[in-house]
Amino acid sequence: MPEAAFLAVDWGTTNRRVYAIDADGTVVAGERDDRGLTAVGAGGFPAEAAAIRARLGDLPMLCAGMVGSARGWVLAPYRPCPADLTELAAGLHWIDPRTAIVPGLSCRTARGGDVMRGEEVQFLGSVAAGLAPADALLCQPGTHCKWARIGGGRVESFRTTMTGELFALLRRDSLLAEFLAGEVADGAAFSEGLTAARDATLLGDLFGVRAEVLLGLRAGDDAAAYVSGLLIGSDVREQALHPGERVYVLAEPGLGELYAAALAAAGARPSPIDSQTAFVAGVTEIWRRADGFEG
Amino acid sequence: MPEAAFLAVDWGTTNRRVYAIDADGTVVAGERDDRGLTAVGAGGFPAEAAAIRARLGDLPMLCAGMVGSARGWVLAPYRPCPADLTELAAGLHWIDPRTAIVPGLSCRTARGGDVMRGEEVQFLGSVAAGLAPADALLCQPGTHCKWARIGGGRVESFRTTMTGELFALLRRDSLLAEFLAGEVADGAAFSEGLTAARDATLLGDLFGVRAEVLLGLRAGDDAAAYVSGLLIGSDVREQALHPGERVYVLAEPGLGELYAAALAAAGARPSPIDSQTAFVAGVTEIWRRADGFEG
Repeated sequence: MPEAAFLAVDWGTTNRRVYAIDADGTVVAGERDDRGLTAVGAGGFPAEAAAIRARLGDLPMLCAGMVGSARGWVLAPYRPCPADLTELAAGLHWIDPRTAIVPGLSCRTARGGDVMRGEEVQFLGSVAAGLAPADALLCQPGTHCKWARIGGGRVESFRTTMTGELFALLRRDSLLAEFLAGEVADGAAFSEGLTAARDATLLGDLFGVRAEVLLGLRAGDDAAAYVSGLLIGSDVREQALHPGERVYVLAEPGLGELYAAALAAAGARPSPIDSQTAFVAGVTEIWRRADGFEG
Repeated sequence: MPEAAFLAVDWGTTNRRVYAIDADGTVVAGERDDRGLTAVGAGGFPAEAAAIRARLGDLPMLCAGMVGSARGWVLAPYRPCPADLTELAAGLHWIDPRTAIVPGLSCRTARGGDVMRGEEVQFLGSVAAGLAPADALLCQPGTHCKWARIGGGRVESFRTTMTGELFALLRRDSLLAEFLAGEVADGAAFSEGLTAARDATLLGDLFGVRAEVLLGLRAGDDAAAYVSGLLIGSDVREQALHPGERVYVLAEPGLGELYAAALAAAGARPSPIDSQTAFVAGVTEIWRRADGFEG
């Protein structure tokens, strides 16, 4: 096994991925578990980091994601956009001389502002790895979907949508919950939701799902896919994409396929990117550019 | 006290209003409580009706609202639109010769379909009482907001939006919950939400609330009013109103003021209607037109 040079942790609210990476940026060992912020809790981070080092090697460690939020290990202040990997490296928040947290990004827009933590590594890593060009629109779907415009290799601006969280709220607690237990796949009902989303009448379309099932106009089994199409279609519509615009999508396969279908239906051209590859490329570049890690 | 001729129950999921009404349509006694469907439960309705008669008089009884749904007393099938008060009277579902349930309405639209239970009495009662003309657009905000087009004194079509339920879900369980505990009133933050709603970018605007509070761009105290403005503004936008269009609003005072502000901001002309007066006028007309009540 090649020797790892550092450890990288993609440390989110629910999940955590740990990578041992060599000096060339190759992953030599990895773990995935549910030791996210919720499970670790305030005060539990030093012991978790020690346990990771005990398992994967006593090496420098870079942590990214919600671990740098007020509910994480320590608060690592946002860096303002535009920002590239050098600025993320310069903005590292040091826990000790061998442990640092990657800062999130903030941006100001005409409308207001936005924030991210963790996705910046994947976005800039996509460019660093040559998976996306230095001027591109990237999308990372999830509980909160991030849309980032990259220009000259920097994150220029971004926009977060509440798409995944809204679907989860509707599925768990709403009047529609009883219809939304089914699997969601790209198919006729999903496409119908995408088409409906063009009208920007989400509040009415959502109630319509229940009404149409009650009236026998829609199969209850179809409702989850239709609502997913409504929400993802709305998310894509909100981005006001240009016809034929290329969008690089970083997602798990299932969700990635739904966004690809929604983007294609909206006249855009989706290109999937493997988000783990992007993360590893990004965090390796930050490690290389960081000043002051002690071995 | 004038003598009551019949009892009318506006029987919803959570709340219940009972009226003792004389032959002229004047309320001679009334009650409001929380003995809605959830509290009464399956099988509990006959005893509830007997208790109402014991308190307010042993009279014919008309029930309207979710009491006629599958989760209510008995299922009273929807009547299709267009429909007027005579059709509601003809469609009464009889429990016994002195007790009947007003049917809900269904409608088919180009998009799909919609249903209502209870609001049809208020809408048609508004016209019967002379509170709205026989050709009008009426709106009843609430957990599910109903928009009904009345033509020639009949409900021609309607559309339900999930506005109130979505606000409740966001306030109770979402990432935004911590910011949404405050009171909502018509003010600068509410107006800002109305303005933002014009862009039809709800999924992004919702996440933006959290980001802007974190970045110090928005006061946390303002967030509830802003999100309410976003949602109510979206609801009004979805109706594609004509400039200067009159909209009759049946609502509690607080919510009615928010919808009035949203309608005015969208260039429409709101007119408040007292929904209890409308209900009593509607249910009295149904009672008059019903064939077969035994005293």
